[in-house]
Amino acid sequence: MRTLPVELPSWAFGNSGTRFKVFGQAGVPRNPYEKIDDVAQVHRFTGATPSVALHIPWDRVDDYPSLARYAADQGIALGTINANLFQDDDYKLGSLTNPDAAVRAKALDHLVECVDIMLATGSRDLKLWLPDGTNYPGQDSIRARQDRLAEALREIYARLPADRRLIVEYKLFEPAFYTMDIPDWGVSYAHCLSLGDRAMVCVDTGHHAPGTNIEFIVAFLLRAGKLGAFDFNSRFYADDDLIVGAADPFQLFRILFECASAGALRGGGDVTYMLDQCHNIEPKIPGQIRSVLNVQEAAAKALLVDTEALTAAQNAGDVLGANAVLMDAYNTDVRPLLADMRTAAGLDPDPMSAYLRSGYPERIVAERVGGQQAGWGA
Amino acid sequence: MRTLPVELPSWAFGNSGTRFKVFGQAGVPRNPYEKIDDVAQVHRFTGATPSVALHIPWDRVDDYPSLARYAADQGIALGTINANLFQDDDYKLGSLTNPDAAVRAKALDHLVECVDIMLATGSRDLKLWLPDGTNYPGQDSIRARQDRLAEALREIYARLPADRRLIVEYKLFEPAFYTMDIPDWGVSYAHCLSLGDRAMVCVDTGHHAPGTNIEFIVAFLLRAGKLGAFDFNSRFYADDDLIVGAADPFQLFRILFECASAGALRGGGDVTYMLDQCHNIEPKIPGQIRSVLNVQEAAAKALLVDTEALTAAQNAGDVLGANAVLMDAYNTDVRPLLADMRTAAGLDPDPMSAYLRSGYPERIVAERVGGQQAGWGA
Amino acid sequence: MRTLPVELPSWAFGNSGTRFKVFGQAGVPRNPYEKIDDVAQVHRFTGATPSVALHIPWDRVDDYPSLARYAADQGIALGTINANLFQDDDYKLGSLTNPDAAVRAKALDHLVECVDIMLATGSRDLKLWLPDGTNYPGQDSIRARQDRLAEALREIYARLPADRRLIVEYKLFEPAFYTMDIPDWGVSYAHCLSLGDRAMVCVDTGHHAPGTNIEFIVAFLLRAGKLGAFDFNSRFYADDDLIVGAADPFQLFRILFECASAGALRGGGDVTYMLDQCHNIEPKIPGQIRSVLNVQEAAAKALLVDTEALTAAQNAGDVLGANAVLMDAYNTDVRPLLADMRTAAGLDPDPMSAYLRSGYPERIVAERVGGQQAGWGA
Amino acid sequence: MRTLPVELPSWAFGNSGTRFKVFGQAGVPRNPYEKIDDVAQVHRFTGATPSVALHIPWDRVDDYPSLARYAADQGIALGTINANLFQDDDYKLGSLTNPDAAVRAKALDHLVECVDIMLATGSRDLKLWLPDGTNYPGQDSIRARQDRLAEALREIYARLPADRRLIVEYKLFEPAFYTMDIPDWGVSYAHCLSLGDRAMVCVDTGHHAPGTNIEFIVAFLLRAGKLGAFDFNSRFYADDDLIVGAADPFQLFRILFECASAGALRGGGDVTYMLDQCHNIEPKIPGQIRSVLNVQEAAAKALLVDTEALTAAQNAGDVLGANAVLMDAYNTDVRPLLADMRTAAGLDPDPMSAYLRSGYPERIVAERVGGQQAGWGA
Repeated sequence: MRTLPVELPSWAFGNSGTRFKVFGQAGVPRNPYEKIDDVAQVHRFTGATPSVALHIPWDRVDDYPSLARYAADQGIALGTINANLFQDDDYKLGSLTNPDAAVRAKALDHLVECVDIMLATGSRDLKLWLPDGTNYPGQDSIRARQDRLAEALREIYARLPADRRLIVEYKLFEPAFYTMDIPDWGVSYAHCLSLGDRAMVCVDTGHHAPGTNIEFIVAFLLRAGKLGAFDFNSRFYADDDLIVGAADPFQLFRILFECASAGALRGGGDVTYMLDQCHNIEPKIPGQIRSVLNVQEAAAKALLVDTEALTAAQNAGDVLGANAVLMDAYNTDVRPLLADMRTAAGLDPDPMSAYLRSGYPERIVAERVGGQQAGWGA
Repeated sequence: MRTLPVELPSWAFGNSGTRFKVFGQAGVPRNPYEKIDDVAQVHRFTGATPSVALHIPWDRVDDYPSLARYAADQGIALGTINANLFQDDDYKLGSLTNPDAAVRAKALDHLVECVDIMLATGSRDLKLWLPDGTNYPGQDSIRARQDRLAEALREIYARLPADRRLIVEYKLFEPAFYTMDIPDWGVSYAHCLSLGDRAMVCVDTGHHAPGTNIEFIVAFLLRAGKLGAFDFNSRFYADDDLIVGAADPFQLFRILFECASAGALRGGGDVTYMLDQCHNIEPKIPGQIRSVLNVQEAAAKALLVDTEALTAAQNAGDVLGANAVLMDAYNTDVRPLLADMRTAAGLDPDPMSAYLRSGYPERIVAERVGGQQAGWGA
Repeated sequence: MRTLPVELPSWAFGNSGTRFKVFGQAGVPRNPYEKIDDVAQVHRFTGATPSVALHIPWDRVDDYPSLARYAADQGIALGTINANLFQDDDYKLGSLTNPDAAVRAKALDHLVECVDIMLATGSRDLKLWLPDGTNYPGQDSIRARQDRLAEALREIYARLPADRRLIVEYKLFEPAFYTMDIPDWGVSYAHCLSLGDRAMVCVDTGHHAPGTNIEFIVAFLLRAGKLGAFDFNSRFYADDDLIVGAADPFQLFRILFECASAGALRGGGDVTYMLDQCHNIEPKIPGQIRSVLNVQEAAAKALLVDTEALTAAQNAGDVLGANAVLMDAYNTDVRPLLADMRTAAGLDPDPMSAYLRSGYPERIVAERVGGQQAGWGA
Repeated sequence: MRTLPVELPSWAFGNSGTRFKVFGQAGVPRNPYEKIDDVAQVHRFTGATPSVALHIPWDRVDDYPSLARYAADQGIALGTINANLFQDDDYKLGSLTNPDAAVRAKALDHLVECVDIMLATGSRDLKLWLPDGTNYPGQDSIRARQDRLAEALREIYARLPADRRLIVEYKLFEPAFYTMDIPDWGVSYAHCLSLGDRAMVCVDTGHHAPGTNIEFIVAFLLRAGKLGAFDFNSRFYADDDLIVGAADPFQLFRILFECASAGALRGGGDVTYMLDQCHNIEPKIPGQIRSVLNVQEAAAKALLVDTEALTAAQNAGDVLGANAVLMDAYNTDVRPLLADMRTAAGLDPDPMSAYLRSGYPERIVAERVGGQQAGWGA
């Protein structure tokens, strides 16, 4: 069992909140370099987060190769480039699907900029989460917006070099409340199918309707060769962006078991395992560490499933027996095993305590004074 | 504006209920012929239901051409053939996706029988609603079940004559509670894409997760040329199978407006507009009449939308103006218009009253004594 | 049929948005006086909005009697005082239920300030929406927080003069994601029962779990004499705060029918009918006008129900007949009736067009330049 | 740590299913005596199920004292008496809330019969789950039905001897789809408050809207002294009635942690811990054993929480620290501990294997031939 690499989102280290209030935290980074410093801390104690996803324009810098070297010096690679189509005043009625062709062109230009940044950072993936949609019935034509979306996706896909991928995320609602232009995995999948092999779906675990079976979607996309990435987080109600595994650890286990079954938990494959979270009230770096531990524990349990016994029970129609095989793995306490693996890898067996003792939390609070704290996105 | 043809389900005239209780009703038909008599009554007073969907084995008869002639004599065509894969003891763990190959073969045989019946009845469509799924995590392999499903669909599609269609329905849950093998439109769509042009999706309006935007799915499928049929009903919570338009008439209007926008409300096209309901506590024939009236009213409103004004407002980014155009049509009372159309067509302007006065309700109660009342499925 | 008075929220005229982005609008008011000017415009054209709810601290002024006179000169009364317990940095882990007694005391002080303001403005009601809750299991004791809440409510209730009321709102989630301390009507009701006669429940139509039957709650609270106020808005998914009646006009009608049935639609009674909305992408004043029209239309339909015929059908067990009586009223186009009533009252029959022609929209854009635009809350 | 007594429902041993199909199982009991035999098996291997809940009329016998002795001889007490108001043809439009007074009287008579049975069986609790409601808006008056409900509850409560309790269950939907007359805990609680101290609320874990925080309700009711019983089961979508802990074991742990915090996990107190499940596709007795094990594991974890550390972290506002204390207990594998406890109590450490090896499963299949297999309700 090797460590599953988890990609961290640079924005998880910045301030975040709800529409009601963003509670600032002391020690929050003020620029992409400081964010990378924090990512490196998580990696230092977990050994599991060798890359960071960037968000443009939040992580815009003058010299991306220099940023990449700065990260590499700390053992961190620059990962997925995330586009932002929701914070420009022009995007009030949409970006790629806006009825106004000039706005659409502007949004496309932003994606082209992101592709350029990918080349400069060495990133494999451009991730597109489309916030576009409508708030009121009749506000715009659902179909016309799909036409505009299809055209924009074609154009940006055509711009991608042959060794890069376009990752298309979906979301049920928010920021738009009546329609989202990519509301579910089916719409994302359909567009990716039309585009070609290097267009793949991103599953954000917080972006579904109540009652949706997420591991089913994961299994379906893996079977179809179309699962490109996860945005991990957890939710009780909507897109709460809580620590992954905090709301329903059994669901996380089931999702990762589908990945394990498809041979996708080895790392280095098609699926990028990324966090996408908001630590609104808890400290950022410990929030990320806890998230990584939760993923590790769920992954370890997923890999412990006795698949031979499982398949035998399934094929025999032994409902309770098959369920019991799965639950045996889930009910196992894998923390000692993971602690041993960390020790063997030269890490502290308890990453959270080690971080809290490290002096880093106090240092960033003392040093990161003045300037503009980083803010966030979803 | 012509009348939109609505296909009635034969089973809506039989007894139905919840898992707690089926309340029988006096006068319920005892065989397919009596069901057709009832369908003909609805058609007689609404002029809008020229065909009936059959459900096999509930509507199995020895001589389908004879049944077709019997129907034709009353102005009714035999429509969609609905397969039943949920009531045989062998299907406890699934039919087409059962881990046992013998059960899968039996299920496939049933579909082949349905194709034979289609040829005998002259039906265009075979509709497959797959009740298969699992109740417990681990019970069976999600992926293996998709493989089995894909194989079964290929086989049955290969059996279809070139002028017939396979309509694939989806459903979020029930009767299975952990996974359904075709839980959403995306899975149905993906399989239909793999099959070919004559495989199309059926949208049952009661089969979605809370918060799902159904008209979006309708618009998407129409754009993709993959909307084959509706199963109309309404719901407040789950698959309640109430009278269409009873729970959210504005949603029904929005759905039909998407059909109108795509030119699919003219009738005679790719989309079969079918009811699929359970009149658990209300009388069956009036329940169907009310459903047809609700569809007619929503369709009339959908056709009243001033699409030029709507498009102009949409393109101008006039959110409230565009919404107002839609709402103007919705807020119109179209009942007088529909009454006039009925009168012009030689019908009573008030189909419900005319039916209740017709003597038919009393007659069936008096005459349909003895025998076995028809029961239902969803 | 008289006009139902609708109370407008001052904050609906300020900028609002989602956590992703607040899109500013030209002409937005910059202080409470300008908000009142806008409220007066809505009242001028609809004749239906004679009062405005204030939000403290957003509407803090030095001289409340002066503000009240300013409003009165335009025909507007100062209505409900809304407390704000979510925007102070100290409230990160809660206000009235915070584990820290000092924070709780501060929150209570704010409520006391609100009571003082009520006396200065002549407001009848203090409305408490409690944003408190937790994001993670274990974060705090659910029970201890209820104890703290009960104590705080007792203290503030004791401060209220005998002719004033405390209105307690509830909300399923947001800003907290694991627990809210007042998540549903039951919690609000239970606390109000403990407090006394002048503590009543506020129903915000956007604050429920999917599938909740809101009119049932309304009927239940009216029967118990505990419905104090509505916060009207509409939602497709979560607390979307869209224009009331925009998402489900039939639901709004059903809610108002329960009010009509209980004799609560006459105005001047126990129930305050307030809007609570965010016009994120549409213009504010037209958004409020449209909302008022939607309430008026739904209320007019509710009053059109033939209650004698309804009761007769209900008592006869005539399911379809009773439903038809209700639907007959709902399907009626009441816009001509309302236009006539407006004309009779000396108003323009079409308030929206009259407003748009009035020159006011252009004037506020031209004049309200510089300064700080008002922002919002929920 | 002592064993938490779990009450089993007699009907879990009978056949059950969905509205689509009931799949019969070999060996299912044919009368209340055989059900008690099966309950005794579960108790024999788990040592944790000393009582059985009866359902009237399904468990009607001529001689209840004899049934009680038969049970007592096997170490089983007769527990809660569950009324059935949903399977009589007269109840199509409701029982206690039916518009027809004669039907209401009949329903009340049934409850009186249940009280008589309680006296004969020595049961403490009469449990009322009210299936009443409406399917269509307007079908009946929400308020009138509450009046009828209040009156019926008063009458039956007045009939209860002073040492007996009335337990009032609530349910969001099903079998009624528009309104349920007791849809949520608030309605149940409000009626219980009006009745008196011996009226308490039953929380069925499958009867809530999506997103409802059940442990919050549990904590609230425990604080108010109004939690009378649980109906344990689990669900992914609606009232799925699956094995408790199968869908969301973390939720079960959180619920039982609230019970532990309130000192309600000791057994012998006010709260009856009952299962209420349907083993539609899995074998009944193993399904019950698995359920008991799941409750035991969750309860053991709940009791392992370091409450001092938890309270300290909560009071310090240490969000992640407090959450970690809770998760440490949840992540512990308590199965070895429970196995040791069983061994100490003279039980097999692995109840499921011991049962499967016992010969009982084969015996009931062989012996229970002929007769009418028991069916069920919810």
